[in-house]
Amino acid sequence: MSSVPERSEIDEEYTWDLESVYATDDEWQKAYEDVAERVEELQAYEGQVTDDAETLHSVLELRDSVMRDVSTVAAYARMRRDEDTTNQEYQALTARAQSLAADAQSAASFIDPELQELTREEFDGLVETEPALELYDHYVDDVLRMKPHTRSAEVEELLAELGEVTGATGEVYNMLSNADMAFPSVEEPEGEGKGEAVEITQSNFTNLLKRPDREFRQQVYEEYFDEWESMRNTVASAYKNSVKADVKTARARNYDTAREAALDGPNVPVEVYDTLVESVHDNLDKLHHHAELKRQALDVDELQMWDLYMPLTGDEGPDVEYDQAAEYVVDALEPLGEAYQSRVAEGLESRWVDVYENEGKQSGAYSSGTYDTQPFILMNYQDDISSMYTLAHELGHSMHSQLTKDEQPFVYSGSVSYTHL
Amino acid sequence: MSSVPERSEIDEEYTWDLESVYATDDEWQKAYEDVAERVEELQAYEGQVTDDAETLHSVLELRDSVMRDVSTVAAYARMRRDEDTTNQEYQALTARAQSLAADAQSAASFIDPELQELTREEFDGLVETEPALELYDHYVDDVLRMKPHTRSAEVEELLAELGEVTGATGEVYNMLSNADMAFPSVEEPEGEGKGEAVEITQSNFTNLLKRPDREFRQQVYEEYFDEWESMRNTVASAYKNSVKADVKTARARNYDTAREAALDGPNVPVEVYDTLVESVHDNLDKLHHHAELKRQALDVDELQMWDLYMPLTGDEGPDVEYDQAAEYVVDALEPLGEAYQSRVAEGLESRWVDVYENEGKQSGAYSSGTYDTQPFILMNYQDDISSMYTLAHELGHSMHSQLTKDEQPFVYSGSVSYTHL
Repeated sequence: MSSVPERSEIDEEYTWDLESVYATDDEWQKAYEDVAERVEELQAYEGQVTDDAETLHSVLELRDSVMRDVSTVAAYARMRRDEDTTNQEYQALTARAQSLAADAQSAASFIDPELQELTREEFDGLVETEPALELYDHYVDDVLRMKPHTRSAEVEELLAELGEVTGATGEVYNMLSNADMAFPSVEEPEGEGKGEAVEITQSNFTNLLKRPDREFRQQVYEEYFDEWESMRNTVASAYKNSVKADVKTARARNYDTAREAALDGPNVPVEVYDTLVESVHDNLDKLHHHAELKRQALDVDELQMWDLYMPLTGDEGPDVEYDQAAEYVVDALEPLGEAYQSRVAEGLESRWVDVYENEGKQSGAYSSGTYDTQPFILMNYQDDISSMYTLAHELGHSMHSQLTKDEQPFVYSGSVSYTHL
Repeated sequence: MSSVPERSEIDEEYTWDLESVYATDDEWQKAYEDVAERVEELQAYEGQVTDDAETLHSVLELRDSVMRDVSTVAAYARMRRDEDTTNQEYQALTARAQSLAADAQSAASFIDPELQELTREEFDGLVETEPALELYDHYVDDVLRMKPHTRSAEVEELLAELGEVTGATGEVYNMLSNADMAFPSVEEPEGEGKGEAVEITQSNFTNLLKRPDREFRQQVYEEYFDEWESMRNTVASAYKNSVKADVKTARARNYDTAREAALDGPNVPVEVYDTLVESVHDNLDKLHHHAELKRQALDVDELQMWDLYMPLTGDEGPDVEYDQAAEYVVDALEPLGEAYQSRVAEGLESRWVDVYENEGKQSGAYSSGTYDTQPFILMNYQDDISSMYTLAHELGHSMHSQLTKDEQPFVYSGSVSYTHL
């Protein structure tokens, strides 16, 4: 643990199988060019979306096929970059894919405003002429619902074009925190490696905060946040501008708040969000009680930030290596039935998961993929129980994506962040 | 020089007189509120700009008065922030002023598209009715010239609203390089302070590269750029996104390139820019000859980056303290006449210049101010000849602004970056 390996030192069986998406970067390049061509075809439909049922069906089908391929082109580049965020080749591929995605959004931006000129009844009439349009029934409901927040075709095109720009400070922040920021080393206080230097990283940080030696924990905590503090103006500026972009974009779409805008896409009433936050606030006493129990268990006068990650039992819990964790998780899924269990096992076998930390790797964990790829998982696995929980959590997302793809056509294959509940 | 003082340690006579702009931050707040109100008044004219000569004159006059005050409100906040870029209060004031400026741009965004509905002849007719419109004659020429690059009122409003967002990564970069990045200390190799630690800063860097000790220079150079290298992904991402924003905005305004867009505002043909660059390229042999002379004078086998700042004479030149430099500069301006000389001396006397480096101060040097403020100068003066040249250079800009303001109404008081030639 004392130093982070290079990407090339990681065993292939513990890396995700991105070759199953594109066997080589050349294949990616071909896919990129192919879809870029179809983006241009799409543009030719401007002004004709609702001419007749057949045209409407053609344009929606073409849009689906473009978006489907763009998402895979973008996901591959992004996941390759996340393997090592300092890799300039994949930074460049990611940038090109982002531009392609913005171009595709922009090229498709006339569709919704044109559709919104239809009434629900007129659409039903078109379905009678072209029954294949039935597929888009719920989609059209959604588009009509968004009419008060959809601007003219020229404004929608501009908003789509500027989509990349409004997300820019998030990307800069990401580069700072994942690719560039480095944290000091601390001295291993105990055990085999006693006295050795341990480099604090984004992914071993919470783990180091589970060590029984309280002074060590405090040192880790302070060194880690001193580093963040030294970047406080940069981070604050990135955050401020990210909020500003959200607010401006929300206003441009006639929303009162960025929160409302964020929730309206997946059709979630603001009240649901507010109720959630309120319920958490109303039940903070449980959290405080838990903190008090932890204080007692750790036998300290005052619970500090560097105590919060300690388990109530006062030790780190047993080590769990990745292979063992995978077995435990599959076993624990027994209540969901054999079909579910074996689908998870199959996924693990076919290298859904990019397991271990390496130099430059994106911190944290996520489940990601597209309609046409496996539902990949990025982790920074740390041989402990908490990492095992993360594996189980991300596998939940991945199975959700997988089962959605099995059951739903592309146009309805999106999922909502409420999955976390 | 070995450590940078706090802002509060700087003698008032060597700071700029921002109290002459607003005596207190409360005064700033009042000015802010006052102009924010007039921004709303401006919006009421939408759709009526060319109704009649009187309305046109009123709206242009109101716009001028709003823009004039907004620029002063923004300049004060920004210059206060630049005194110490880590000061959160002035970061917040700057952010509010930027939002106000974006709101004002957005509120005024309908004016140009509405004016562009006029022909030149129709405008001349309006001038006959309302002779005060004569003032806007050249301005209207400019607006009509921009017609092919002006979008509809709703797109122009959105572009104005998003103006802040498209500049966001520049601001993040600015925070990184001026407020957060710190450079290592090196050991003073000679003279009185021999052996003492000298902190490398953004503003003493080029100065340290003028030291005769070549090994010391190399060390300074490498320590400085190692620090930049450690932030290379963040900086590259900020730059990439800044370029992207320029390109997207240029395209939105029907320009082929960002370069064309940047030059068209001040009505500079792209050929002028290209010819400039070409002329420099065609004459690189002089630069290379100069470098060869420097190599010989320094008596080194190969000229390195850390040799480039060395004067040909091989030493740093005499120390020039600020007061002495100010005298030299005023004396040297004799050929421009006594009126010019005494205006410069008066400006220096009335604290145009914020002279010395302090913790968190914006690096580099600039001349800045508005139609209603003195033409202030920010420096990081280093007691040497090169700083004296910078003082003379910035005073040139400031006198240019001052004389422009003396001679021109607000609407024509802008100046062009070609001033550097």
